[in-house]
Amino acid sequence: MTPKQAKAAIHLRVMLAPGIAIGPGKADLLAGIRDTGSISAAGRAMRMSYKRAWQLVEELNTSFREPLVEATKGGAGGGGAQLTRAGADVLARYARMCAAASDAVATDLAALRKHLRAKGR
Amino acid sequence: MTPKQAKAAIHLRVMLAPGIAIGPGKADLLAGIRDTGSISAAGRAMRMSYKRAWQLVEELNTSFREPLVEATKGGAGGGGAQLTRAGADVLARYARMCAAASDAVATDLAALRKHLRAKGR
Repeated sequence: MTPKQAKAAIHLRVMLAPGIAIGPGKADLLAGIRDTGSISAAGRAMRMSYKRAWQLVEELNTSFREPLVEATKGGAGGGGAQLTRAGADVLARYARMCAAASDAVATDLAALRKHLRAKGR
Repeated sequence: MTPKQAKAAIHLRVMLAPGIAIGPGKADLLAGIRDTGSISAAGRAMRMSYKRAWQLVEELNTSFREPLVEATKGGAGGGGAQLTRAGADVLARYARMCAAASDAVATDLAALRKHLRAKGR
């Protein structure tokens, strides 16, 4: 679990089609690629194996009509990766869905939390 | 993944406190206990090991001020389990949160789905 996820009050997984979903893992990976310019660096920051990070990117790229992540060529580091416009759109939309869902459940969540045992607080 | 979860458009995990969450797994287990009167039968229906089902129930029971599941004594089967009123309340509230979150993201979800590759449809 990333620090970002640990702080979130909800985790949302959205079922796009049978066998195709986007949730906190893929969203954090996309955000990491945007921030680091590298699939492997983004995966590493999530303690995800290189292979797993590439698998998830491949899954996303083949699920959508346009790829969400594209390789960038050249530069001193020998190229990396970046979000396409479609990738940025999907990530922004997922973030908006999380915010909307979080707002929608806030009252019930506060009520649920009142019934927790006080232990350790 | 249970058939019920496979059909849902979203999966919601609610973080109640650090290390304490309720999501589709625990919710389905509670619903199964309500429906079967047995922790092991409820776990079996989810292809969950007996040990795992009991662990989750124990986790829920110690997280909340009142237990959510209680043992029932006697009867031909030697006793089973049922939801307490608190357990039924938590399950109902979680279901309401899922419905509210699902409504809140419906428009964005429909838009996201339009960008999926048509493959296999």
